Amino acid sequence: MSYVVGIVGATGAVGQELVRLMRERNFPLSQLRLLASSRSAGKTIQVGDEKIVVEEAKPGVFADIDVAFFAAGGGVTRALAQDAVAAGCLVIDKSSALRMRDDVPLVIPEINPEQLQSHGGIIANPNCSTAVMLMGLWPLHQTFGLKRIFVSTYQSVSGTGAEAIDELDAQVRASVAGEAITSRVYPHQIAYNCIPHVDTFGADGYTGEETKMAQESRKIMGLPDLKVSATCVRVPVLRAHSIAVSAEFERPVDLTAARAAVAAFAGAELIDDPANNRYPTPLECAEHVRCGVGRLRIDTALDNGISFWVSGDNLWKGAALNAVQNAELMIREGWLAAKAASAAV
Amino acid sequence: MSYVVGIVGATGAVGQELVRLMRERNFPLSQLRLLASSRSAGKTIQVGDEKIVVEEAKPGVFADIDVAFFAAGGGVTRALAQDAVAAGCLVIDKSSALRMRDDVPLVIPEINPEQLQSHGGIIANPNCSTAVMLMGLWPLHQTFGLKRIFVSTYQSVSGTGAEAIDELDAQVRASVAGEAITSRVYPHQIAYNCIPHVDTFGADGYTGEETKMAQESRKIMGLPDLKVSATCVRVPVLRAHSIAVSAEFERPVDLTAARAAVAAFAGAELIDDPANNRYPTPLECAEHVRCGVGRLRIDTALDNGISFWVSGDNLWKGAALNAVQNAELMIREGWLAAKAASAAV
Repeated sequence: MSYVVGIVGATGAVGQELVRLMRERNFPLSQLRLLASSRSAGKTIQVGDEKIVVEEAKPGVFADIDVAFFAAGGGVTRALAQDAVAAGCLVIDKSSALRMRDDVPLVIPEINPEQLQSHGGIIANPNCSTAVMLMGLWPLHQTFGLKRIFVSTYQSVSGTGAEAIDELDAQVRASVAGEAITSRVYPHQIAYNCIPHVDTFGADGYTGEETKMAQESRKIMGLPDLKVSATCVRVPVLRAHSIAVSAEFERPVDLTAARAAVAAFAGAELIDDPANNRYPTPLECAEHVRCGVGRLRIDTALDNGISFWVSGDNLWKGAALNAVQNAELMIREGWLAAKAASAAV
Repeated sequence: MSYVVGIVGATGAVGQELVRLMRERNFPLSQLRLLASSRSAGKTIQVGDEKIVVEEAKPGVFADIDVAFFAAGGGVTRALAQDAVAAGCLVIDKSSALRMRDDVPLVIPEINPEQLQSHGGIIANPNCSTAVMLMGLWPLHQTFGLKRIFVSTYQSVSGTGAEAIDELDAQVRASVAGEAITSRVYPHQIAYNCIPHVDTFGADGYTGEETKMAQESRKIMGLPDLKVSATCVRVPVLRAHSIAVSAEFERPVDLTAARAAVAAFAGAELIDDPANNRYPTPLECAEHVRCGVGRLRIDTALDNGISFWVSGDNLWKGAALNAVQNAELMIREGWLAAKAASAAV
């Protein structure tokens, strides 16, 4: 069985990773269709030996598509996802637009795969920081029972998109050349700086990103009472987000069991040998399938607490990879139907 | 009254800031003597209109010096501070070597100035991250009564020293030029990266920096039972450290009182208008006397909790400035004796 796959937002940072992962992971494709805004329509993108012409993402385009990965913003999802669903196309959405809807499963396949079975045509992918963090938290939760977390993020500019990667690069080049530095994507210079402002501010003083980390962690892990305190910060890193976590558990903790649980978890790679300078860094964990988890230690301000550090690729586990993994699992389990046209290929 | 001042480690990053601050703040100098290792002795350093020849820091050199700022490492302090004290010279030490000794006051003048009155010849300065953090915490503690903190740092490379500033610069230039990147100062590349490793690791999995933040916060604020959970991280920022703090208090909190307390505190500048993208950043707070405090909000995982973000210059409030402020206060209060030779000037 193979499938006609559409990528909406194919020219963006996540879209490009979806194209790459489709090929590298031998996704069973009968056809790959690249969709983007009218501005990008007509461009050609080289995919392996093939040149694919970008089509405009618009109503009606999903008729022959089995699975559409939405990798554009929430506005595009709101405008087009329902049309895709009506055309019998499964939508796997990167945006935050529909994540908290009761009829939309929010899935990390290593955590809540069973929720892929029952959906209304749309599967949501988590926020990038949440996905990376849970690759460390979930195995610890399963071992000790999670109650409360305090987290601070160190988020790369690729989470904002290709234009932010360009902005950091341009600012660094201007700095090296001794030229004036300008900012357009971020409200402040990001080169040689940290900006405690990811997404927009709410009336409670928290950013959307911080609120998402709380709400999505609860939904994905099925822990409606989980207490979450988050500070989200943009740092001058190109790729991979890192998160410092202090976690409080129901039951007594021990580090041997904690490390064993992380090491055994499919979403994590245990990198935890500080004596030899081994701990995760974003540079090391970029373009890795598993998120690096390390610096596990008994938390000094909590009863039954563990602190740790996790780094993971925001474009992969935080976006494109998780989406592809969701689709792969649905195929493996027989939960994804192919339309006649493509199923016959 | 004016004083003969010595700067030990005058050629380093903090030593250079001490030289600059002495001049900019019109410190009552009768003479400025620059001391460094034998390797730097004989060099001349331009200070205003004057060229000062660097002397070797060695026993015997402190006979005519009233105040010596030690801005080299702990090894130099351990080797020479006692000799300076024996010569009747007040030592104001940047290193961590003596900070936790019972007979050494550890002082931030906005917090515990009274401890400058009674000492054995040595005043210690706090760790840079601790000093910056307390500029936000102390006014909140005074208002609500502090119990526990969860903190993550975003520390600039200048905290490591001039050689680390050079390393970040060289790595960025190599990256821009498409050349190979090498690391000598840090165990991993710092450009475009975050390294959760500041100071050396202890057996409990915490770094020295993390342990210092706990111990020194307790000593300076006089809170021996304060619970502290810290994660310290080096980020590719040149100057100024930032800290994300979740703080739990004895008494109910409210943000109006919290902001008023921060705004009224001499060590802090309240920068807290997120709707207009106003919050502290390291770039903005570098070379500022006051540390920027913002993003004040009710913590979502604590009873009586407030979260905030603080950025402050690690070379200034975190080192040289705090040292100079300690000396200035001692002069103002009449606690600093000048030796006859200089007092006569």
